[in-house]
Amino acid sequence: MKTVAVKNIPRANQQTLSSLAKLGVATVHEAQGRSGLLRPYIRPIYRRTQIAGNAVTILAQPGDNWMIHVAIELCQEGDVLVVACTTENDDGMFGDLLATSAQARGVKGLIIDAGVRDIAVLEDMNFPVWSKAISAKGTVKNTLGAVNVPIVCAGQLINPGDIIVADDDGVVAIPNKNAESVLQAAEKREALEIEKREKLAAGVLGLDLYNMRPRLKENGLVYLDSLDDLNELD
Amino acid sequence: MKTVAVKNIPRANQQTLSSLAKLGVATVHEAQGRSGLLRPYIRPIYRRTQIAGNAVTILAQPGDNWMIHVAIELCQEGDVLVVACTTENDDGMFGDLLATSAQARGVKGLIIDAGVRDIAVLEDMNFPVWSKAISAKGTVKNTLGAVNVPIVCAGQLINPGDIIVADDDGVVAIPNKNAESVLQAAEKREALEIEKREKLAAGVLGLDLYNMRPRLKENGLVYLDSLDDLNELD
Amino acid sequence: MKTVAVKNIPRANQQTLSSLAKLGVATVHEAQGRSGLLRPYIRPIYRRTQIAGNAVTILAQPGDNWMIHVAIELCQEGDVLVVACTTENDDGMFGDLLATSAQARGVKGLIIDAGVRDIAVLEDMNFPVWSKAISAKGTVKNTLGAVNVPIVCAGQLINPGDIIVADDDGVVAIPNKNAESVLQAAEKREALEIEKREKLAAGVLGLDLYNMRPRLKENGLVYLDSLDDLNELD
Amino acid sequence: MKTVAVKNIPRANQQTLSSLAKLGVATVHEAQGRSGLLRPYIRPIYRRTQIAGNAVTILAQPGDNWMIHVAIELCQEGDVLVVACTTENDDGMFGDLLATSAQARGVKGLIIDAGVRDIAVLEDMNFPVWSKAISAKGTVKNTLGAVNVPIVCAGQLINPGDIIVADDDGVVAIPNKNAESVLQAAEKREALEIEKREKLAAGVLGLDLYNMRPRLKENGLVYLDSLDDLNELD
Amino acid sequence: MKTVAVKNIPRANQQTLSSLAKLGVATVHEAQGRSGLLRPYIRPIYRRTQIAGNAVTILAQPGDNWMIHVAIELCQEGDVLVVACTTENDDGMFGDLLATSAQARGVKGLIIDAGVRDIAVLEDMNFPVWSKAISAKGTVKNTLGAVNVPIVCAGQLINPGDIIVADDDGVVAIPNKNAESVLQAAEKREALEIEKREKLAAGVLGLDLYNMRPRLKENGLVYLDSLDDLNELD
Amino acid sequence: MKTVAVKNIPRANQQTLSSLAKLGVATVHEAQGRSGLLRPYIRPIYRRTQIAGNAVTILAQPGDNWMIHVAIELCQEGDVLVVACTTENDDGMFGDLLATSAQARGVKGLIIDAGVRDIAVLEDMNFPVWSKAISAKGTVKNTLGAVNVPIVCAGQLINPGDIIVADDDGVVAIPNKNAESVLQAAEKREALEIEKREKLAAGVLGLDLYNMRPRLKENGLVYLDSLDDLNELD
Repeated sequence: MKTVAVKNIPRANQQTLSSLAKLGVATVHEAQGRSGLLRPYIRPIYRRTQIAGNAVTILAQPGDNWMIHVAIELCQEGDVLVVACTTENDDGMFGDLLATSAQARGVKGLIIDAGVRDIAVLEDMNFPVWSKAISAKGTVKNTLGAVNVPIVCAGQLINPGDIIVADDDGVVAIPNKNAESVLQAAEKREALEIEKREKLAAGVLGLDLYNMRPRLKENGLVYLDSLDDLNELD
Repeated sequence: MKTVAVKNIPRANQQTLSSLAKLGVATVHEAQGRSGLLRPYIRPIYRRTQIAGNAVTILAQPGDNWMIHVAIELCQEGDVLVVACTTENDDGMFGDLLATSAQARGVKGLIIDAGVRDIAVLEDMNFPVWSKAISAKGTVKNTLGAVNVPIVCAGQLINPGDIIVADDDGVVAIPNKNAESVLQAAEKREALEIEKREKLAAGVLGLDLYNMRPRLKENGLVYLDSLDDLNELD
Repeated sequence: MKTVAVKNIPRANQQTLSSLAKLGVATVHEAQGRSGLLRPYIRPIYRRTQIAGNAVTILAQPGDNWMIHVAIELCQEGDVLVVACTTENDDGMFGDLLATSAQARGVKGLIIDAGVRDIAVLEDMNFPVWSKAISAKGTVKNTLGAVNVPIVCAGQLINPGDIIVADDDGVVAIPNKNAESVLQAAEKREALEIEKREKLAAGVLGLDLYNMRPRLKENGLVYLDSLDDLNELD
Repeated sequence: MKTVAVKNIPRANQQTLSSLAKLGVATVHEAQGRSGLLRPYIRPIYRRTQIAGNAVTILAQPGDNWMIHVAIELCQEGDVLVVACTTENDDGMFGDLLATSAQARGVKGLIIDAGVRDIAVLEDMNFPVWSKAISAKGTVKNTLGAVNVPIVCAGQLINPGDIIVADDDGVVAIPNKNAESVLQAAEKREALEIEKREKLAAGVLGLDLYNMRPRLKENGLVYLDSLDDLNELD
Repeated sequence: MKTVAVKNIPRANQQTLSSLAKLGVATVHEAQGRSGLLRPYIRPIYRRTQIAGNAVTILAQPGDNWMIHVAIELCQEGDVLVVACTTENDDGMFGDLLATSAQARGVKGLIIDAGVRDIAVLEDMNFPVWSKAISAKGTVKNTLGAVNVPIVCAGQLINPGDIIVADDDGVVAIPNKNAESVLQAAEKREALEIEKREKLAAGVLGLDLYNMRPRLKENGLVYLDSLDDLNELD
Repeated sequence: MKTVAVKNIPRANQQTLSSLAKLGVATVHEAQGRSGLLRPYIRPIYRRTQIAGNAVTILAQPGDNWMIHVAIELCQEGDVLVVACTTENDDGMFGDLLATSAQARGVKGLIIDAGVRDIAVLEDMNFPVWSKAISAKGTVKNTLGAVNVPIVCAGQLINPGDIIVADDDGVVAIPNKNAESVLQAAEKREALEIEKREKLAAGVLGLDLYNMRPRLKENGLVYLDSLDDLNELD
């Protein structure tokens, strides 16, 4: 592992980030071809928040938050910290002091494949975190890692400057260069969903809305009047 | 696996369902002899909701929600969708569009041994879900399963038409034909608990209320004044 | 295992407990040299509560809550019940009736390396619980365990009378004799944190506040302008 | 739960069992339409054994092996013990003494959704076990369960008299009445596989053997010469 | 945590250790009242070995094996290294070089609540290890822990000098002062088991050998001729 | 996700692969700066095999092995198949037929972040597999993925043509362009280890061999004669 900190990363404009945040994780994930999702064990420490920001990536040692301090200096308004660990770890590598410092630089939130602490204070500060664990376990500042290099966080490759969208459903990453095209695809999808939602609410069945009946028949689905008929089939 | 959809299932009357919902999972589970409980990894996506309904059962392929569409057509007012998977899966197999469609048919909620997404919208819609995971991962509609056949969901055998009771404590299933007898037993138990609760709140000890002292003595429980006495026993 | 119940345990005064509760788990854990923390799988059943109390310890059999009844008689105002199991178990070994009884004796809450049920009622009662699982699974009263003996709960050795501090971040135990010294160290730490927090909020970097730059350099951290420079390094 | 022990169960003939054992789990599972498989966390305590037998089912309490003793009396030559628990448990509910007793009655092996102990002795005795855990934790004989009732073991519904096939790949259950038809389907499948294996060993590709190329093309698979071409596609 | 290394610990004589090793974990665990067992996630890296030795205890930082080097100097013929971590960790904290050094001092094996590597070489060296994980992940030597202090390893409190017995079934700890009394109880138990085993092998049922029939009846076990009778009971 | 199959990948020469295989995972992992390791949940289906090969990477859908067939055509002598899934899955996506086909093309083994089946046959064929699970669960051929694109397998980014080294300790990936430099560093390390091993076997302590004593003292390690001295310290 190279112990480097890269100072400059690509960033999306605030308007794009704001639009992506509103669209949410599920829609964005679908809009980019069902890719980019972090494993679902990463969960928000409190509900009802949705953010989008530029990934400032951190590769940290287990139980060591030294590189997060290094990363904060390199953050700008609208960034999101994304922390991966060199090995599995649940320690509380981030707390209210780091959040205060990050927030002072305009950081919108944290994604961490490890633990976090001071979560009541973080919620009061309105600093959202998506983490693998909640733990008060303290950490050291002993061994270098890296900042703004490609990392694997919760099973997902994330490059510095990728757009991170996070809400109650989880976290998705968009390659920086695809930000605009994914936004457009997501908006298009969202528009279609509104229309579908109205029809479904009015009682139209998905079977009819998506014209599923012929394909169900073709695949051999058999309708029976009762479970007794099934036993007779045997 | 037979790829069938069974159209008719037994259903309990709304009054019975409503009474069971109020009694809650723990009381119902006790009232039917401590059986019927789903494994505790099935958790509600939001708190403070309690429902009871008739199980419309679905056996789905991993990452494939085709059969849920088939099931919704077969639902009536007061039903609960119960989804099992042919293999372990955490994908978000159900979201706000399916919930809109289900709610339009009077479905009260969903139990799913897999993932769910759009959970903030589902809460706003007041459509409760008990699931194994929360995940934005999209699903396909490629492979048939079955609707309204006996399934194993979270370790529990569930027949179509079984009564599902779900609240913050988890999910329990009651065989359809036992709905009334379990309801009566649960109401009886509840009445007894109110009485016990008052006594306990007034300071009566469980040791006395349940007359445990003789049996504790018989089983050999020894009271010591301090931990030092224990070390002397060695 | 000796089947004993020890009647007397050391207790801290209410003022000390109250001060420790306010300081919280993360600060207390740091103040006693990063020791005493229970594994982070122990989570509160509801948020925004923080307590400190004297541990009344219970070693229970899996799925058997008999010894909790024995323990409640031995509780006093300001105690916290701490339950370990002889083997891993998720059953709902504690519910609203036991909570009513415990609360009647002044017990502040429960830490349990197993399951709990009736959690909506427990929240309404303002009786906080930190547990490994939530489960409606009922339990028996068949096999003796022990009360107020040293136990291992969630990976942490806990002696009867140890001070338990619990909040949204988890649970920490303080040896009884260290209560005052840990309190003082925690208050000192807290005071320092307030000062640091102000500086960080004002934009001072952790790198400067903690004078990290020389040691980062000494350890070989290299700053690069862009990721392309990293690839050139290879 | 009804505390009963059912004395008579359907049984397959030894020739059928012997043939199914040789065909193995993967082939049998495929031959009955990819159903009947127990969750893969059930693993053999030693390798290189394959058995088939009639399920004598046991529903046991956690950490309580009383019902296994009851079951053994009801076993005949060629049976397999299948143990489910009323709640998750890893205790060593079965050891060399029970195995000696079971073997004396002709029992071929054990499937247990809990723990087992004395595994070195069990291997020396040639008594195979598929379990969730290996643990020396002793058990009690306190609470009744049931024998030869339908159970859910490792996520699979198993009726008494179902045929259990187990080998290094896991465990599969066949409904008793389907024993002959599944055997025939499995033998047919096995014959086809031998043919395929020879072709594949000779270098014929699956793409050609199964005529996959047209469907791959139809689904849109694109062949590229190098990864650089992929980046150009973006 | 106090960063100390304690030089002298109590030790059992080699004859006692040798006898306990032969008796094995399950028997020893039963003989001391079903206590002392480590959680079953600790597994041997290879089978068919059984050891007993004096615990040289180590409290290590995650991913840091510095204290194991300190501990080896303090080892004598017949000791067993027992490593706990201050937080959960799977890194390969021990490999063939440390094993070579330990073996040169007469150490019989290692119990580690973390990872181990070079396992093929360790087996060739005949140096048995019971661990939570197998991982090639390298470790640092940065932060102090402690040697020969009480630790919690895999959920079990272990004092320096406790007797560790380990075999294919897992690991059990015996308080040093109880070594002789547990040995005697275990030998007695073993003798009884031989007798029972013979009877069971001859076809005597556990139901009769342990005189279970009256108590089964008293507890309400009902024998039915067939499953159909059960359905009629409903 | 782009549904492509890339035909050409970089490959290391057979001599380099053979040397890396002999050095083993732990040494290679250290030699490249402790990077490249897959998560330790990936385990070999049988022991005592060590391989090195060029990664032919596969991104598959859960429970769908279609792309493995596509990949095999693109394999050459000395390749290793590396399979990642778009979502977590334990199904048996690879068995003896695919192994026969792969072996016919010179493939040395398989790394799969999912399940495998027919493991007894695979061992007889001498076709090693490192997998997350063993499961007989069959798979479909319905949805496209990709071949020879960058994938994340068990938490590790793997590019097509990376060198995979796998043995009893796990699996490590080396970027293709670093194959020679890592080999040299690994050989150097191996040579040093032989020397160290001899000294340690002769009784030299790690404390002296690595000159740890001054740094231990500097960090504050205190030696005590007995545990009683520790209690006095408090």
